[in-house]
Amino acid sequence: MDSNPFTFECHATDGQARAGVFHTPHGPIPTPIFAPVGTQATVKAVTPAQLEELGAHLVLSNTYHLFLRPGPDIVAEMGGLHRFMNWPHPILTDSGGFQVFSLTSMRKLDEDGVTFKSHIDGSMQRLTPEISVDVQQKLGADIIMCFDECASPYDRDYVERAMHRTHRWAERCQQAKTRPDQALFGIVQGGVFPDLRQQSAEWIAAQGFPGHAIGGLSVGETKAEMNHMIEVVNAVLPPEKPRYLMGVGSPEDLIHGIWRGVDIFDCVLPTRLARHHAAMTFSGRLNLMNAVNARDPRPIDENCGCYACRHYTRAYLRHLITAKEILAATLISIHNLYTLEELVRQARQAILEGRYQAFAENFLANYRPQPENKSRPA
Amino acid sequence: MDSNPFTFECHATDGQARAGVFHTPHGPIPTPIFAPVGTQATVKAVTPAQLEELGAHLVLSNTYHLFLRPGPDIVAEMGGLHRFMNWPHPILTDSGGFQVFSLTSMRKLDEDGVTFKSHIDGSMQRLTPEISVDVQQKLGADIIMCFDECASPYDRDYVERAMHRTHRWAERCQQAKTRPDQALFGIVQGGVFPDLRQQSAEWIAAQGFPGHAIGGLSVGETKAEMNHMIEVVNAVLPPEKPRYLMGVGSPEDLIHGIWRGVDIFDCVLPTRLARHHAAMTFSGRLNLMNAVNARDPRPIDENCGCYACRHYTRAYLRHLITAKEILAATLISIHNLYTLEELVRQARQAILEGRYQAFAENFLANYRPQPENKSRPA
Ligand SMILES: [Zn+2]
Ligand SMILES: [Zn+2]
Repeated sequence: MDSNPFTFECHATDGQARAGVFHTPHGPIPTPIFAPVGTQATVKAVTPAQLEELGAHLVLSNTYHLFLRPGPDIVAEMGGLHRFMNWPHPILTDSGGFQVFSLTSMRKLDEDGVTFKSHIDGSMQRLTPEISVDVQQKLGADIIMCFDECASPYDRDYVERAMHRTHRWAERCQQAKTRPDQALFGIVQGGVFPDLRQQSAEWIAAQGFPGHAIGGLSVGETKAEMNHMIEVVNAVLPPEKPRYLMGVGSPEDLIHGIWRGVDIFDCVLPTRLARHHAAMTFSGRLNLMNAVNARDPRPIDENCGCYACRHYTRAYLRHLITAKEILAATLISIHNLYTLEELVRQARQAILEGRYQAFAENFLANYRPQPENKSRPA
Repeated sequence: MDSNPFTFECHATDGQARAGVFHTPHGPIPTPIFAPVGTQATVKAVTPAQLEELGAHLVLSNTYHLFLRPGPDIVAEMGGLHRFMNWPHPILTDSGGFQVFSLTSMRKLDEDGVTFKSHIDGSMQRLTPEISVDVQQKLGADIIMCFDECASPYDRDYVERAMHRTHRWAERCQQAKTRPDQALFGIVQGGVFPDLRQQSAEWIAAQGFPGHAIGGLSVGETKAEMNHMIEVVNAVLPPEKPRYLMGVGSPEDLIHGIWRGVDIFDCVLPTRLARHHAAMTFSGRLNLMNAVNARDPRPIDENCGCYACRHYTRAYLRHLITAKEILAATLISIHNLYTLEELVRQARQAILEGRYQAFAENFLANYRPQPENKSRPA
């Protein structure tokens, strides 16, 4: 009898794409899957009942934010994150590393960890691999992440140093972890450098983690670079473990990631866009604030089955936006999240039926992406 | 065969209190009932699905706000207010009178109507009895209201002039109304003066309206004065028509209003308090922002069956408030609205069982009201 509550069943592969199920103590996660982000123990503007209805299976929450507020002890006293936020299904927490390296000022890094100034009250705080794991154990998510150092992707010297530190920290996270009902995932770093990515993937793959993440992408590199890095890494990571591409959530990135063997995605994009009045569809983005919507009786997307599209016109959504009503954020968030869950559902079905390439090509042919990121330094 | 879609069945009386059903083209309304307010065609922070779940039967929306934005023509083009806001159950619209006299500046009143400056864009706008009815016919609510003049309740000369004008305007509203699928309610005015209230109730009662409203209360007078005015008016209004007390929604006011024969209430209080972190309970108000809630594992109200109380601790709600998360407003709004719907459900049951007085006395003995309004001029 296998007492490991975390098993990954692969039901079908189609090229590099995989359709599977990752089992957790809070239920199975069909893969590929998109995880809505509940930064502060709530997916902004959406209730758990609405998340269930729109087809979410896994929710991500941020260790950095919950560490600072309300603090891991309060969450633990309230029975852990599942009960605290009323999400009885699988939860993933990140390690805090990404936020420490992107949100905080007056950051001081040493080999043991990072001291930083809280963006909330300016107090000095410290995270180390051991503290991150301790916090994540108190939060109690099903999937927890190694504390890693996120480097600027084009600075090779820094990327290499950060990668090695990430590896040393990963070992410390493994040693610190004690709860058997949580799966600790290792994170591959290496910026945009194929040799570093390969080296990192080999090192991480050798540690026996129950799942693997690709970190440090979608942080300013081009789409082509990102996709190349996914290919390099997934050629090394063992296929019998789930693969999680961190912080990626545009529809075309999901299509490309799944094509290259990614199983799990998360991103704030759908809910953040919603609060800025932008709807995500299978053909591209739609700004509902535009005056052209004022008398438009159509739903956001005539092919969408979400609560917003089944019941509301673009005219009504634009009215809510101009009237600054909270319901606008709720309805557009529901739509955007449904759209991504529907995308991964359709992708999974296509993989099961051995037609993922045709599905992906058809999707991309109909999809008008946002302009490519031009932030690569000269 | 009676083709009138609006009938009021009284199932039981208990003293002056009544339990009934008011039938409308969008379904029956059990009375007494509390109507959540959807000022701008949305009950703030709550979806219609959540309103159904918490037991709402009737929603109020504001003609003044919808007249200015998005405008009645757009609502009509979208199939009317029921479809626009996705509330297929009964809707009531007020006339715009109250907002014109309380929200606008640079108001100019004449016998024909009121010219005022929009609070949104500063444009000059005009409402008359005929325009108000036309707008309300385009919106298409089940219950619509006569355009009335709301006076400061203690200025007898002004109150008397406004009352007579309200009567003249009520006749014009009746003449302007053409849709048979809407019920136009007349409004009794008269400030805090019993003789004026009686005179107004007699005049309005003689016009053959399918329902009657008591306006101009809860605007600064004492609770004792309000309750006295309700008694004076309801002694005159015919018992076979529903009675609607406008803009009243504190628990103790509902108890006293029902006791005196009121059937319908509406108020922004439960949703407005929710956005200011205050929960309404059968024992009084609770400010969830208070630090004492930080580690409190209890729900807002252990006896409440709402979605928020079934699933969330006070500690979580306080976390959402301090983190400025939208979900705080949603969950507390759901709780506050549920509390008022539960109150009228229990009141209705008590009336049906002939024990309303004991129910009301018991409620008031356990309820700690907010401090009495001291705004009465010397
Ligand atoms: Zn949709
Ligand atoms: Zn409740």
